[in-house]
Amino acid sequence: MERPFWRYRLEIEYDGGPFAGWQRQTNALSVQQVIEDAAAKFTQGTAHCYGAGRTDTGVHARAMTAHLDLPKEVDPFTVQNALNALIRPHPVAILSAEEVSEDFHARFSAKERQYLYRYVTRRAPLALEAGKAWQVPYALDAEAMAEAAQHLVGKHDFTTFRSSHCQSKSPHKSITEINVTQDEERIDLFLRAPSFLHNQVRSIAGTLDRVGAGRWSADDVKDALEATDRTRCGPVAPAEGLYFLKAVY
Amino acid sequence: MERPFWRYRLEIEYDGGPFAGWQRQTNALSVQQVIEDAAAKFTQGTAHCYGAGRTDTGVHARAMTAHLDLPKEVDPFTVQNALNALIRPHPVAILSAEEVSEDFHARFSAKERQYLYRYVTRRAPLALEAGKAWQVPYALDAEAMAEAAQHLVGKHDFTTFRSSHCQSKSPHKSITEINVTQDEERIDLFLRAPSFLHNQVRSIAGTLDRVGAGRWSADDVKDALEATDRTRCGPVAPAEGLYFLKAVY
Repeated sequence: MERPFWRYRLEIEYDGGPFAGWQRQTNALSVQQVIEDAAAKFTQGTAHCYGAGRTDTGVHARAMTAHLDLPKEVDPFTVQNALNALIRPHPVAILSAEEVSEDFHARFSAKERQYLYRYVTRRAPLALEAGKAWQVPYALDAEAMAEAAQHLVGKHDFTTFRSSHCQSKSPHKSITEINVTQDEERIDLFLRAPSFLHNQVRSIAGTLDRVGAGRWSADDVKDALEATDRTRCGPVAPAEGLYFLKAVY
Repeated sequence: MERPFWRYRLEIEYDGGPFAGWQRQTNALSVQQVIEDAAAKFTQGTAHCYGAGRTDTGVHARAMTAHLDLPKEVDPFTVQNALNALIRPHPVAILSAEEVSEDFHARFSAKERQYLYRYVTRRAPLALEAGKAWQVPYALDAEAMAEAAQHLVGKHDFTTFRSSHCQSKSPHKSITEINVTQDEERIDLFLRAPSFLHNQVRSIAGTLDRVGAGRWSADDVKDALEATDRTRCGPVAPAEGLYFLKAVY
């Protein structure tokens, strides 16, 4: 019996700027569409690509994992090179490709997701990092942000920190780690968890911005979490500062 | 007697991608023109802006120093904010502005210039850093590059490593320091000197690429330098990997 498809695991970097997010849509360009269209072209068949996460409009990825099902067997080196050649000039790069078993599922097999949220604290607009960080025109206290963030680590009802459009059945999630590092004007917020709710990282990033600016205390964050009330969240931080870093299997 | 102009020192970040370099030209957009035009607009007079270095087409700057002469006195905070507002959407950011005496000259007062050349060694094209580094699709030996580079430190006749269009009277220059650091796929070449010849950094970067790839030895670099022969230089590395870091006064 003929095998219906061959599965490849891809690691993908992309600049989210020109895309309406990862997921294929009818009226807007998505990262998934760009990859599927390139794969369909070089296999002359239908290709399906599923990502570990569905990033929103404008969100970047350093190494999104996806699985790609092709209608024929192709050596992985060729998969990588052919996709990269056909994807141009879109800012999507296939960092690696390997053949995997049909058991591997980019979304359901993932045990952990890691995200980075980047703030740049300065008055001047961003020239070299335009669209690649949230430019915040005031100082942020990274230590206060790190301290407040610890209230969010562990298993909680994250109703306060998820989008009203979130389709997850439960608002309960476990955050494994949050840390905050500072390098001059750049502040990086790093988060890892088995999975995240829709807009959870940006809701946390926007709330911690309030803490960094001295307008919220760590206890305000704790109270907002415990209120399980979306209206108690800080502003949702802009997409341009958010990076899907990697999925762990 | 009325003072003819007021001088401001600016630190400027820019993405060189859309510009035909720093210096004003008749038929192409330059960083200098963007700044002078913005300054002329908010002072309603003629403004002149001189940079510490004249970067080529496509070369970036993290902190180019320039002096800007305005036909009236304006507080530096307003100079910075007005320029940033009027420069939009060009990727040029005024990081700081301060009033300085007429003795300060961005080019002639500078005692040292610092440059960074960035290589990213990977097969996949650059998505997030597109246009911001030289993507080299083979491995580079950073230690070999660092060792070979030491032959170029000190005072030498750099005829081999300068453009045939270089307007400097003498090919003799002193390089104070060159070092090479590696962070996974990224290799950064850092150079500082009182001043550089035209295309000197990119000529060195292209030559060290040959060393990193194992095609040239450190002695080949020494021999090429001593030959004082432009045809003995390695290929000139592309502009997109080059950053003017700062000038020291």
